Amino acid sequence: MSSFAVGILAGTLCTISFIPQIVKIFKTRQAKDLSLITFSVFASGVFFWFIYGIMIKEFPVILANGITLVLVAIVIAAKLKFG
Amino acid sequence: MSSFAVGILAGTLCTISFIPQIVKIFKTRQAKDLSLITFSVFASGVFFWFIYGIMIKEFPVILANGITLVLVAIVIAAKLKFG
Repeated sequence: MSSFAVGILAGTLCTISFIPQIVKIFKTRQAKDLSLITFSVFASGVFFWFIYGIMIKEFPVILANGITLVLVAIVIAAKLKFG
Repeated sequence: MSSFAVGILAGTLCTISFIPQIVKIFKTRQAKDLSLITFSVFASGVFFWFIYGIMIKEFPVILANGITLVLVAIVIAAKLKFG
């Protein structure tokens, strides 16, 4: 397996991983056990990966982190809504 | 700000972000709102970033993802313990 393929697999897994958390919050309408600080700091980190992707002009980095940022923002919004 | 510095900032934020979640679970002894699938899939993604780092021989990628993997594994263990 090439390092490129491993990188694509790693990025895809990290990005899609947040979907079950979103589904769980909206199903149970509860999010109190989630750390708002964790998801906020993580989102800021992903934001800087997104900026990094723009700076080094790497479209896969921009795309993966752009999608992750949207998904994590949904988790944060749901956390703020359901507490 | 150089792309290198932005990358270091991004990686550091994403790695340390899991510490407040660990603290929160151990303080409240509750983790039922956390999605086990999310943290498991995310951990597998981080594991492949770790392997990717070894393949491309980039020590910062190995280090950041190695630490993140340990922190996320603690979140998963705490989730399994406190439910």
